[in-house]
Amino acid sequence: MNTTLLAQAANEARGLAMDAVHVCNSGHLGLPLGCAEIGAVLFGESLRYYPDAPKWLNRDRFVLSAGHGSMFLYSWLHLSGFAVSRDDVKKFRALHSITPGHPEYHETPGVEATTGPLGQGVGNAVGYALSGKRAAARFNTAEHTIFDQHVFAILGDGCLQEGVAKEAIAFAGHSGLDNLILIYDSNDVTLDAMAKVTQGEDAEQYFLSQRWDAVTIDGHDLGAIASAIETAKSAKNGRPKVIIAKTLIGKGIPEVQGTAKGHGEGGAKFIDGARAGLGLPADEHFYVSAETVAFFAEKKEASKAVFEKWQATYDAWAKANPELAAELTAGVALSVPSDLSSKIPAFAADYKDATRSAGATVINAVAKEVPQFLTGSADLFGSTKNYIKDGGDFSAENALGRNIWFGIREHAMGAICNGIAYDGLFRASGATFLVFADYLRGSIRLAALSNLPVTYIFTHDSVGVGEDGPTHQPVETVSGLRVIPNLDVIRPGDAEETAGAFAAALLRTDGPTALILTRQAIPLMNDLSVEARRDGVLRGGYIARKETGGLTTILLATGSELQYAIAAATELGDGVRVVSLPCFERFERQSAEYRESVLPKAVTKRISIEAGVTDLWWKYVGTEGKTIGIDRFGMSAPGDVVFKELGITKDSVIAAAK
Amino acid sequence: MNTTLLAQAANEARGLAMDAVHVCNSGHLGLPLGCAEIGAVLFGESLRYYPDAPKWLNRDRFVLSAGHGSMFLYSWLHLSGFAVSRDDVKKFRALHSITPGHPEYHETPGVEATTGPLGQGVGNAVGYALSGKRAAARFNTAEHTIFDQHVFAILGDGCLQEGVAKEAIAFAGHSGLDNLILIYDSNDVTLDAMAKVTQGEDAEQYFLSQRWDAVTIDGHDLGAIASAIETAKSAKNGRPKVIIAKTLIGKGIPEVQGTAKGHGEGGAKFIDGARAGLGLPADEHFYVSAETVAFFAEKKEASKAVFEKWQATYDAWAKANPELAAELTAGVALSVPSDLSSKIPAFAADYKDATRSAGATVINAVAKEVPQFLTGSADLFGSTKNYIKDGGDFSAENALGRNIWFGIREHAMGAICNGIAYDGLFRASGATFLVFADYLRGSIRLAALSNLPVTYIFTHDSVGVGEDGPTHQPVETVSGLRVIPNLDVIRPGDAEETAGAFAAALLRTDGPTALILTRQAIPLMNDLSVEARRDGVLRGGYIARKETGGLTTILLATGSELQYAIAAATELGDGVRVVSLPCFERFERQSAEYRESVLPKAVTKRISIEAGVTDLWWKYVGTEGKTIGIDRFGMSAPGDVVFKELGITKDSVIAAAK
Repeated sequence: MNTTLLAQAANEARGLAMDAVHVCNSGHLGLPLGCAEIGAVLFGESLRYYPDAPKWLNRDRFVLSAGHGSMFLYSWLHLSGFAVSRDDVKKFRALHSITPGHPEYHETPGVEATTGPLGQGVGNAVGYALSGKRAAARFNTAEHTIFDQHVFAILGDGCLQEGVAKEAIAFAGHSGLDNLILIYDSNDVTLDAMAKVTQGEDAEQYFLSQRWDAVTIDGHDLGAIASAIETAKSAKNGRPKVIIAKTLIGKGIPEVQGTAKGHGEGGAKFIDGARAGLGLPADEHFYVSAETVAFFAEKKEASKAVFEKWQATYDAWAKANPELAAELTAGVALSVPSDLSSKIPAFAADYKDATRSAGATVINAVAKEVPQFLTGSADLFGSTKNYIKDGGDFSAENALGRNIWFGIREHAMGAICNGIAYDGLFRASGATFLVFADYLRGSIRLAALSNLPVTYIFTHDSVGVGEDGPTHQPVETVSGLRVIPNLDVIRPGDAEETAGAFAAALLRTDGPTALILTRQAIPLMNDLSVEARRDGVLRGGYIARKETGGLTTILLATGSELQYAIAAATELGDGVRVVSLPCFERFERQSAEYRESVLPKAVTKRISIEAGVTDLWWKYVGTEGKTIGIDRFGMSAPGDVVFKELGITKDSVIAAAK
Repeated sequence: MNTTLLAQAANEARGLAMDAVHVCNSGHLGLPLGCAEIGAVLFGESLRYYPDAPKWLNRDRFVLSAGHGSMFLYSWLHLSGFAVSRDDVKKFRALHSITPGHPEYHETPGVEATTGPLGQGVGNAVGYALSGKRAAARFNTAEHTIFDQHVFAILGDGCLQEGVAKEAIAFAGHSGLDNLILIYDSNDVTLDAMAKVTQGEDAEQYFLSQRWDAVTIDGHDLGAIASAIETAKSAKNGRPKVIIAKTLIGKGIPEVQGTAKGHGEGGAKFIDGARAGLGLPADEHFYVSAETVAFFAEKKEASKAVFEKWQATYDAWAKANPELAAELTAGVALSVPSDLSSKIPAFAADYKDATRSAGATVINAVAKEVPQFLTGSADLFGSTKNYIKDGGDFSAENALGRNIWFGIREHAMGAICNGIAYDGLFRASGATFLVFADYLRGSIRLAALSNLPVTYIFTHDSVGVGEDGPTHQPVETVSGLRVIPNLDVIRPGDAEETAGAFAAALLRTDGPTALILTRQAIPLMNDLSVEARRDGVLRGGYIARKETGGLTTILLATGSELQYAIAAATELGDGVRVVSLPCFERFERQSAEYRESVLPKAVTKRISIEAGVTDLWWKYVGTEGKTIGIDRFGMSAPGDVVFKELGITKDSVIAAAK
C-alpha cells in the first residue's frame, strides 16, 4: 500500500470537501475530513470496484449511512474515476446537480443508497449483505464463483443511536452476515454537542453482545485501517464485523476539529488556513494532484483487469447455467412475467376468507412465477400469511431461504428490504400488521423516494382487527400511507382484487407498493369476472357494479367495505353505480378519459365508504358528496360488533343515499 | 413474604386469565401464565400502591410494556383491590368494557399506560422514571420527602427486539435512571416461533454495555423474584436495573407451555385440564379463594396506612411550601394560565425570521409562565431552537434540568414524552426535524389515542429546508400527521401565529399537538393585529385578509405560504379573501356558524396554497377549486430556488385565480 500517496489523496479529498462546502455555504465537513484516511484506504486499496461498470455484479458495495457526509462520497467517487466530474463536485448541492445534499440513489454513479435519515444506511447495508449471501448461495456453482463481494458501510454516532440501526445490527448478528463490515466513525461528537452528552454505551461490548466481531483502531492510521479491513474480510466466521475507528471530526481545520462545530459547515470560513495547513495550493481550489490522478488511473486499469476476468467467468457461468443466468438477468432487469396476473389461479366462486388468507394463496403462485421474489415477516408469518411454502427460511445456515424472519423489528425490515432492492438481484417484500406500518414509515418514504419496487404486505386492516382494540386497529394508516408520493397503496375488496394487487406490486418497477389486507373474511364480488376485477386493480379504480338505468348515484368503496357498497346498490336499484377504488395512485395515473368514464363529473351525488378516516375522500366525492368512515380511534370488541357500532354497514350507505 | 399464599394467588391469576380468554375466545395467555409468580410478588409484596387512590403521587408505577398480556394486569388489579371487578374481568375484550384487548390509559384504574405496540412501554417507563427523578429533585425538601417511587415495567422478547426500546434503554442508562426496574419476561418464545429463530443477543452483556445493572433469575421462584427486586430498589448507584426472569411461557397448560402456541389463545381449549392441574375448582370459573381475598384485603389496609402517612407528609409539605405545592397541583391538573397567549410578548413589527426562531422566543416566554413545562430535542437543539434558557440540562447529575438531550433517538423521544405525560406531573415536549416525525409516529399515535397533551416541535418544514434535499424535505409529513385522529397539527404562518400555536398546544389538555415550523425566514402578516392572529390560531382558521368588495374568491393557505396568498390577494384586488388555516383540527371543532363565516359555502372559487401534497385540501377547496402544492418529493438546492422551481409562489396563485 502506497501510504504516502494515500495520505496525500486523503488531504486532497479534504480539500475537495472544504471547497465544495465553501462554495454552496452549506453541507457537512465533519465526516469528509474525519474519515479522509478511511476513504483513502477504501477507495485506494480495499474496495473492489471498477468505475466504468458501477453496477458490476461482484463489486464490493459501499453505503455511506451517515449520509450528511455526502462530500466524502462525492470526493472519493471523483478521485477514483467514477462519472462524477470536477464540475459535478463544484455543483455540490446545486439545483439538478448529481451531487445533491445527501446521496441519492439513481442520481449519481457509485451511490449505492439514498442516505441521510440516520440509521437507515445500516439497515440498507444489512439488506445488501443478505442479498450478497443469497446471491452467492443461489448462483455460484462448484465451477464458477460470480458473487463473493463484501458490503461496507460507514456509520456515525448518530446512526448508532437510532433504533433502526440497532434492530438491523441484531438481525445481522443473528443471521451470520459475515460479509458485512461496518466502519464506525467514532468521533465522540454529534450534531448538537459532544457525544458524551447523549451517549454512554460501551460500543465494543454492545457489538459483542449482538454476535459481532469488534475491533477499535486509530481512524487516521492508514495501515491500521487497511489491516482491520483485511482481517474483517478474511474472517469467514459467521459474524459481521465492526471496525470502531476513533477519528477527529473535522480534522484539518484546527479551529473546529474535535468539536460539534466541526460537524457542519461551520469550519468553512477557516478553509484558507486549513488548506494551507494540508499543503493544498492557495491558488487552485478543487485541487487534485497529478500523482493522485495517476495513482487512481493505474488502479482503474488494474480494476479493469479484475472486472474483465470476472466477466469471462460470468460468461462461462451463464453459458453453463442458462436457467440460473435467466433468473439473475430477470432479477437485475426487475422483469416479471407480464401476464403475471393471469397466472394466479382463480378462486372458487364460493371462496370466503380474509384477504390475508387469499394473499397466502396468491403469494405462493407469484413465488412460483418469480423465483427472485423474497418475502419476510416481523414475527407474524402465522398472521400475515405471506410464507412461501417450500421456500425455506433464510438463516445463517441457509442463505437460499426465501422467507426472512425479521423478528419484531419492523423498521429494520423496511431498511433491509430497501437494501435488497438497492442491490436489485431479488425482489423484496415484508409483512406486519398494518398499524405497525408507522414503525417503518421512515424506510417506506425512502423506498418511495428512491424508486425501489419493495412490496409491503400489511394485514389486519381497520377495526376488523376486533378485540385487540384501538392500539391495533389502523383507521388512519391507509390514508397516512396514501399521502406519500410515489407509494402505491392497494386495498383490495375481495380475493380476486387481492390477486390483482400482488400482480400490480410485482409488475411495478419504479416504486414501492403497500398491500392492505383484512384480518376478517369477506365474500367474493362475483358479479364481475375474475379478469375484470384483477385488471380493475391494475387500473386503480373501475366500475364494480354498473347502473342498470340512468346514472344518478355513485358509491365509492375499497377493501372490506366494497361488499356493503354493492349490497346497498343492489337494494337502492337502477341508477346506482359502484366504483371500486382499491388504489388511488394507480387510478390517478390513468387517462382523463378513463377516469371520466368511471367517475363522470356530471354525477355529483357520490357517497364513499371506507373503514378509516374520511379526509382524503373529498377529492372523489366532491362538495355535494358524503363520506362514511371512521374519524376516531376504534374500540376493543369483536370486529363485526365494532363495524356496526361505528356505522360501517350497508344500511349506512342506504341511509346516506336516500 | 407468604410464599404459600402468593403461589396460590399466582395460580388463581392464571385461572382468571384462562377463563377470561376462554370466554371471549381471544387474547394472550402466554404472559399472564408465564409471569404469574412475578405478578404475585409485585402486587403481593414489592409494589407500593393503594388501590383506593390509584393516582397516589408517590405510588410505584407499573407499566406492562408487553401489553398483549393484558389479562396479567387485569387479574392482578382485580386481585389486589383496584376498581376492576370480577364482572369487569368477565367482560374481557367486550364492547365498552374497562378490560379491553390491550391496556388503555384512562379506561381502567391502575393502568398506567396504553400498551401493545411493542417497545413503547419501555420508553413510557423511562419517561415515568425521568419524571420521578425530576419530581424528587424539584419537590422534595430537606424536611419532607414526597416522591421516592420506583418505576417497574415488564417487557418481553418482542419489546426488547424493537428499536424504540433499545433507544430508550440507551437513554436511561446514560441518564442514570436508577429508579427504573425492568423485568424481562425471557421465555425464549415470540409470537411466531421460538425466539432463537430471530434473536441471538446476549441480553445480560447487552444491558451491561448500556450502563445498566443486570441479573438473571428463575422467574417462577418467588423468593428469587422478591430478592432481585429488593436488590434493585436499594441500589441507588446511578444505573437502571434489569431483572432477566427466565420463565415458561403459558405455564400451567402442559399442552402448549414453553412453545409459540402458548403465546396467544391457543391454550384456551385445554383449560379444563389445566385448571384442574393448578388445583382450581372445576365448578367455579373466575375463581378467587377466600385466602387470597383476605390476604389482599389485609394488604390494602396496610397500604392505606402507608398512604395516609404519606398524605400527612404531603399536607405538611404543602403548607410549608405553598409555591411548590401550587406548581405541583397545576401540573397534575394540566393547568396553565388561561391567558397564556397574551403573556407572550408581541414581536417587533419588522421582525422577519424563521418560525423556528420565533419559537425560541415564544417557548422561553411559555417556560416562564408554565414551570412544569419541559422540552427536549433529538440532538437538534441548535436547529430546532426550543432550548429553555436558564432551564438547565436534565442529566444523571442534574435531575432539575428542563432541557432533555434525547440523543438521535426520535422514537424513544416520543415514547419518553408519553411516559412523562402519563405521569402527569410535567408537560412534555420534544423536537426534531419535521421529516423525522416519521420515526416517532408510533408514539405520536399512542399520545393521540391516550389523550396525552404532548407537544411536538417539528422544524425544517417542506422544501424550505433547501440544500439538504428530498431526504430532509417533508412534503407529505404534515398531511400524514393531519390524518391521525385527536392530533392537532398547527402550521403557523408568521411569528405571531407561532405564539398562538404554542399557546394552543399548552392550553390543550386532551391530546397532543404538533407544531410545524420553518427553517427559513418569513415576514410578519401585520395587516391584522397580534391578538387576531393568535386568536385565529386557537380557532384553527380565520380571515387573514378580508375582501374589500363583494367576495368572489377565497385563497386558503398555511405556514410559509400565507405570505404568498396575501401578496396575491393584494394584487388581485377587491373580491379576494385570504383564509389562514393553520390547524384543520381546531377549525373543525368550531361551530358551523363560525366556519361558514370564514368559508361561506356559496363561494366556490377557492384556491389553496401549501408547500406539500394537496390531497387533503379538496375538502376545503371543493370540486370547483384548485390546489397549489407539491405532489412529489423535493430537490436539493437553496430553499428559495426550490420554491420557485416547484411553483410555490405568489404568481402561481395569481395565475390560478385568473
